[in-house]
Amino acid sequence: MRTHHCNELRESDIDSTVTLVGWIQSARDHGGVIFVDLRDREGLTQAVFRPEENAEAAKLSHTLREEDVLRITGRVAKRLEGTSNDKLATGAIEIVVTDLEILNKAEVLPFRLDKELSNEDLRMKYRFLDLRRPRMARNLQLRHRATKATRDFLDDAGFLEIETPVLSKSTPEGARDFLVPSRLNPGQFYALPQAPQQYKQLLMVAGVEKYFQIARCFRDEDLRADRQPEFTQIDIEASFVDREDIIKTTEGLLQRVFKECLDKEIGGNFLRMTWHDAMNRYGSDKPDLRFGMEIEDLSDVFASSGFKVFSSALASGGTVKAINAKGFACVTTGQINNLTELAKLHGAKGLAFIKVENGEWKSPIVKFFSEEEKAALAEKMKMEEGDLILFGAGDWQTSCEVLGRVRLAVADYQKLLENDDQLKFLWVTDFPLLAFSPEEDRWVAVHHPFTRPRAEDVEKLQKGEYAKIRAEAYDVVLNGHELGGGSIRIHEQDLQSDMFKALGISEEEQIEMFSHILDAFKFGAPPHGGIALGLDRLVMLLAGEVSIREVIAFPKNNRGADLMSQSPADVEFKQLRDLYLRSVAKRKEEKLVESTNKDIEPSSN
Amino acid sequence: MRTHHCNELRESDIDSTVTLVGWIQSARDHGGVIFVDLRDREGLTQAVFRPEENAEAAKLSHTLREEDVLRITGRVAKRLEGTSNDKLATGAIEIVVTDLEILNKAEVLPFRLDKELSNEDLRMKYRFLDLRRPRMARNLQLRHRATKATRDFLDDAGFLEIETPVLSKSTPEGARDFLVPSRLNPGQFYALPQAPQQYKQLLMVAGVEKYFQIARCFRDEDLRADRQPEFTQIDIEASFVDREDIIKTTEGLLQRVFKECLDKEIGGNFLRMTWHDAMNRYGSDKPDLRFGMEIEDLSDVFASSGFKVFSSALASGGTVKAINAKGFACVTTGQINNLTELAKLHGAKGLAFIKVENGEWKSPIVKFFSEEEKAALAEKMKMEEGDLILFGAGDWQTSCEVLGRVRLAVADYQKLLENDDQLKFLWVTDFPLLAFSPEEDRWVAVHHPFTRPRAEDVEKLQKGEYAKIRAEAYDVVLNGHELGGGSIRIHEQDLQSDMFKALGISEEEQIEMFSHILDAFKFGAPPHGGIALGLDRLVMLLAGEVSIREVIAFPKNNRGADLMSQSPADVEFKQLRDLYLRSVAKRKEEKLVESTNKDIEPSSN
Repeated sequence: MRTHHCNELRESDIDSTVTLVGWIQSARDHGGVIFVDLRDREGLTQAVFRPEENAEAAKLSHTLREEDVLRITGRVAKRLEGTSNDKLATGAIEIVVTDLEILNKAEVLPFRLDKELSNEDLRMKYRFLDLRRPRMARNLQLRHRATKATRDFLDDAGFLEIETPVLSKSTPEGARDFLVPSRLNPGQFYALPQAPQQYKQLLMVAGVEKYFQIARCFRDEDLRADRQPEFTQIDIEASFVDREDIIKTTEGLLQRVFKECLDKEIGGNFLRMTWHDAMNRYGSDKPDLRFGMEIEDLSDVFASSGFKVFSSALASGGTVKAINAKGFACVTTGQINNLTELAKLHGAKGLAFIKVENGEWKSPIVKFFSEEEKAALAEKMKMEEGDLILFGAGDWQTSCEVLGRVRLAVADYQKLLENDDQLKFLWVTDFPLLAFSPEEDRWVAVHHPFTRPRAEDVEKLQKGEYAKIRAEAYDVVLNGHELGGGSIRIHEQDLQSDMFKALGISEEEQIEMFSHILDAFKFGAPPHGGIALGLDRLVMLLAGEVSIREVIAFPKNNRGADLMSQSPADVEFKQLRDLYLRSVAKRKEEKLVESTNKDIEPSSN
Repeated sequence: MRTHHCNELRESDIDSTVTLVGWIQSARDHGGVIFVDLRDREGLTQAVFRPEENAEAAKLSHTLREEDVLRITGRVAKRLEGTSNDKLATGAIEIVVTDLEILNKAEVLPFRLDKELSNEDLRMKYRFLDLRRPRMARNLQLRHRATKATRDFLDDAGFLEIETPVLSKSTPEGARDFLVPSRLNPGQFYALPQAPQQYKQLLMVAGVEKYFQIARCFRDEDLRADRQPEFTQIDIEASFVDREDIIKTTEGLLQRVFKECLDKEIGGNFLRMTWHDAMNRYGSDKPDLRFGMEIEDLSDVFASSGFKVFSSALASGGTVKAINAKGFACVTTGQINNLTELAKLHGAKGLAFIKVENGEWKSPIVKFFSEEEKAALAEKMKMEEGDLILFGAGDWQTSCEVLGRVRLAVADYQKLLENDDQLKFLWVTDFPLLAFSPEEDRWVAVHHPFTRPRAEDVEKLQKGEYAKIRAEAYDVVLNGHELGGGSIRIHEQDLQSDMFKALGISEEEQIEMFSHILDAFKFGAPPHGGIALGLDRLVMLLAGEVSIREVIAFPKNNRGADLMSQSPADVEFKQLRDLYLRSVAKRKEEKLVESTNKDIEPSSN
């Protein structure tokens, strides 16, 4: 249908006859002659409709509108002196049209494509137009490129891509599952997989040795700002490996992806940090290392403090910690209030601070400090004119987390990362295996129930010393985002049983829920481990976007709805009847009530 | 963990020290010394546990069992004269073990891996063991290789792989959807996609131009022998293309896949046949061209026949047709009965035949034929000693279909395809656009409602002459299997509306169900078309298997169940409550009744 694409013709093509297809990016009338920028996936080419070439086409060209779809044939000509466009690869030439075919007319679009649109709902309703923007087209290209590089790398490394079921089994010990009623088995349900975790382990038992899959995963969670009910992960598992093997494979994979997508050499041997260090120094299990502002421990400094908040924290086994926001003594009262709210949200009682201004320490709490404490504090925190010190006191983990959040918020206020192009990769290792959940009143798995304790800590699992067990687990972090996480798995039936026991899963429940995996471990399961990387987030970071919605072709909104296709939707009664289901949602009635009572109470929907 | 895999060591490695890991394929005791074949993904290596090397390991070796997982270190040695194994790549050497580590013990397996197992349920329950068989391991490798070749080819050709939603919208005009209740939108449901049809067309509207996806698709159908509720298709769509472009791309893709998977050159320019010809000559829209036995039309021969079955078929506008099963006069009565049943199953009233034996025509119907008819028949059918002629009479399509089925069954009886390695590719084109459904009392789309009528037939759609419209649709066929099918699509809103009208979809329903696609066509939709290839079937044919279950890692049985993970399964009441659903399945009660009444009535479940 065409001889060239719209980013192909150059001065060397002058005088040749060509056929192009595409959309009208813009149409302009210069002294009665229509000039059109024709756009396809690759770029733009200018076409001109001169009456002396084809009077009918020239006449028709006056009816052309943006986004009409054309097929034009014509002669490549040099643009008139002074009208060439250096910014365009095809800017030296134009097509003098001899034949025009309008393939499809376009109505006026609901929004302009050359401007950013803040109305997210409108973008999503017309996603098929939104994706025409160059930025979105580039993001789709980048995602394709990243998955291709991933597959090429893993194929080269001997991994087999194997598809595992989407109609899967409900997994306890995870997030909430999406359920799929089975018509052939009335009253029973499939679940959509949160991850192919068990299948990939079973593939290791099957002797596959090196598996991967770019797998769609599903979680029926309340959707926070940047979560999607379905997401994609690069899922990797291998047998006869240790942590170092998985780390090396992952680093190689990321090197290949960054090289092929951005032509960047990121190198290997990423920095490593234990989970304890990451929490202790950055207050996060995915620290952003593009800036410092590390958390310092001040428990020694305030060991015998007269300041009650500090002394009572220390007395109950907690800590006193602080960060130094260099040069941020200029913080506003509003900002301090916001930071205090943030601290409280994460479990602090308040947020003590000291501003160093005009050689003075401005702070409501300094009066409680002794001179020795002040001197020790100043030294430890390297306090200088213009600094802002922010404190956390309480149990270790809460203090760390609070200051970790505050640290990020301060960096944001200080615009520390504006125009920053660093790529700070990091491995966080030695996560705790178990954490006590007060809500459930039991120990829960920090990663998942198949994660292996570190060899030195296996005995603690058997002895029931759950708090101190480190897992053979690792996360890979980029600029404060968790790119992925994994672990070496348990492959012995008895150890797996011990783990289930620690989680309070009875033997009967084990059999009901996990018999296939416990069975599998009886028949020669090899040592194995793996990792899963979030593809959406990886591509988001490659693209320099701040939301994964920008790198997903058809994302859902925070109500889990696709505004374009209007899904989810009502279904016919017959469809539910076939599934032996009855809906007891009062949605429609509520909606009626809602529209009647609009002025009385806010919508609950 | 290892220095080599188990298919790597050769005579040139003799005297080097190596470490291998793997499963015990077999263990043998030769005069008190244990010999083990160690297996990994790549192959086998023999290991020997000599007491003089490591007494403790040698002692432990007597406890080894098949499928135990080992790590051994030892010296590569030449096998003793006369004990080398030419069939094994590593057959000249063995490992004299100096260190033995048992990584995991295995219980006795529920079945042997070196024998085929006909108990399909047992295979599926222990799929993680079943996949250890070399044949299954090879099938998984082949599937990986086929998808990799597909992606490489399409990437080279400028196609972008783009993921479309799995949580999608219920599509009318298709098969039955799997539904997914939405917790955030009570009473509403997602549907799992039967194909990404609408999304890929919307991506064309978005200007992607060349899209593909290896996409999981879902159909909640009653499962025939070789259907799966979830399956995978290679989904391709392109803009500014015609049928020839899609055909060329598909042929190139298949060439690449067959080359990289089987090292076979299949060539391009596949044979083409219109749907009418395929039906008329082979009685199938996916004819197997590896053998002849074409259907001949005998309507002229019997135009004034005295045989009532033929004359009444012709009088009511039908046809008389026959095939010549060369050399099959030896057909048994049982076979004739089976063929007759088959014919009746597909709409025939019976199956008339003539055997040519000892120069005589043996047949109950020949007495009704005139001498002229006999002569004309003999000539037309090229009848010779030993032939079997089988007749079909009735309306054209039924006669064709009946003889098409009979033709395949006869080929099966005659073992025409035993040890046949032909690859007969074929394009079937010019399918009918619409077919009248007596059940629904309306016209339905033969492909789907987005298929374009051939340019010459567009007017017939507007005029309501639905029976004669040919579609711009095409199927690619290999050895009687449909590998895939596609079409050029409608891209104009008014033509799409005409199509919906033909299907009896009111304007109101169009807006409710298809407003996004009708909307999209308003804003500059390019001409576009595509194809979808069934990956499971393609890999099945590559692997020489007869069921797609053999090329799917974790398939479901014909009740849609995964016997390994026991899915689908009951869910907790709370899970349904969160979805505002109530199950009205009487399954459990029935089961109780069933087990009580076991001797009285057969199970209904």
